[in-house]
Amino acid sequence: MDQIAYVNGSFVPLSEAKVSILDRGFLFADGIYEVSAVLDGKLIDNASHLARLERSVGEISLALPETIQRIQEIQKELIARNKLVNGMVYLEVTRGADKGRDFAFPKGVKPTLVMFTSEKDIVNAASAKTGIGVITVPDIRWARRDIKSVALLAQVLAKQAAAEAGAGEAWMIEDGLVTEGGSSSAFILTQDDVIVTRPNSNSILPGCTRKAVKMLAEERQLKVEERPFSIAEALAAKEAFITSASVFVQAVVSIDGKKVGSGTPGPMANRLREIYVDFARSTSV
Amino acid sequence: MDQIAYVNGSFVPLSEAKVSILDRGFLFADGIYEVSAVLDGKLIDNASHLARLERSVGEISLALPETIQRIQEIQKELIARNKLVNGMVYLEVTRGADKGRDFAFPKGVKPTLVMFTSEKDIVNAASAKTGIGVITVPDIRWARRDIKSVALLAQVLAKQAAAEAGAGEAWMIEDGLVTEGGSSSAFILTQDDVIVTRPNSNSILPGCTRKAVKMLAEERQLKVEERPFSIAEALAAKEAFITSASVFVQAVVSIDGKKVGSGTPGPMANRLREIYVDFARSTSV
Repeated sequence: MDQIAYVNGSFVPLSEAKVSILDRGFLFADGIYEVSAVLDGKLIDNASHLARLERSVGEISLALPETIQRIQEIQKELIARNKLVNGMVYLEVTRGADKGRDFAFPKGVKPTLVMFTSEKDIVNAASAKTGIGVITVPDIRWARRDIKSVALLAQVLAKQAAAEAGAGEAWMIEDGLVTEGGSSSAFILTQDDVIVTRPNSNSILPGCTRKAVKMLAEERQLKVEERPFSIAEALAAKEAFITSASVFVQAVVSIDGKKVGSGTPGPMANRLREIYVDFARSTSV
Repeated sequence: MDQIAYVNGSFVPLSEAKVSILDRGFLFADGIYEVSAVLDGKLIDNASHLARLERSVGEISLALPETIQRIQEIQKELIARNKLVNGMVYLEVTRGADKGRDFAFPKGVKPTLVMFTSEKDIVNAASAKTGIGVITVPDIRWARRDIKSVALLAQVLAKQAAAEAGAGEAWMIEDGLVTEGGSSSAFILTQDDVIVTRPNSNSILPGCTRKAVKMLAEERQLKVEERPFSIAEALAAKEAFITSASVFVQAVVSIDGKKVGSGTPGPMANRLREIYVDFARSTSV
């Protein structure tokens, strides 16, 4: 059976889910997206994702076409219609389709809102047990990485390079320091048992899972330090891991082919993963 | 009558011209575009645009779904079907629509090719006589501006800022120097009658009109120097102007509200505009 997608007020088969070629998401990457995980048919940490959606659209002066409450209702209806148990809901808001193509914002054009779902057993993903390798690439992105826009070509190229190298993620490097992964936040655990991750700024996306993991770690009296780190430091660390809505917490066992720690998922990554999954289940909506 | 657009092999009314919400142009800005001017129903400097298209898609390892020759045939057929006399043909190639959303390149997916036209009397545009004002904004774009990708959100924001300020273009500034306009190349004419424009590099788009104007100026023994310039230098210059497929050569008469030269289009901008229009007409296809 064809999956159901949402496009501007209608639930339609994914194969018929289309937007105008004049849509500014297609012409200009003039749009914002979010991905929320789904466990047992329920949305994970969704308030955090929708708060970030509101922030991102605000940063580019794009008005949401629906209230946050209504957006969550649509997410839930889409989960129900697709009988989605485990996976993700993707949503994208763009500045809509005008009658032609002009860079400046169109007037009187309703923003586009689309959503679709995908299946993924995030909790039992094979890579959670094995860990992943990452490669490093220069961070060539724009200066407003805090905005979750669909202008993702740099990330596409980074993650394609990772895929070609047989790695699970690309860590982007700027001024000798890791900014973040192509679609995840980067962490290390130092030999002194300090969890280190780069502070939020225009240089990285404020990760929702990053934020939750930091909060959960601090609640458990684990030491968390927000500062940038280098690849040399990561290779000298006890552990490394990434966080994102679609992997939760995921151990990194090698960087550019060099082992991190024991070369297998470490106890801290495993522990934080368990803690996050508990949090996710207990706060899902 | 509804305009005709081209989408993946079919000529369809623009109102029905759509792409899947899974199209990577819409999800990731994973696409390349070109805009060719049309005068008297013929394409201007089109070989240069199609050569740049080939270069851009090559830089992101995207295979064109049609030959360059066939793409030009489609452009011409679209002009004919729309009875377009003066205006532009927009074309966009994306990495197509896969079954889901994955950053890495999909396998076995045919790229998307879309085109549409717009009417504009470029030769007799009012702004050609009055000149335009530009504002300056920080250049916040990614590091591969030589690739003509649809990841244009920074340019959208720059040109929206210009529109709000009543200006016709935004000049982007990096390290105290002008890179280029939001959708045009930037030039000045110094007090010594040297035409100055920034050399091609990863920092700017290699403008087709820029290239032609440079060649035409050099053919006429005008002195052209390729080097970056500052706003201070532009304000001290005799003239300033921009070039692009959709404006040809366009005088800049003020920068951030401060007059350039006499505050009206200067003789060099006017002369180069005439020379370019002659070149355009005589080489159109």
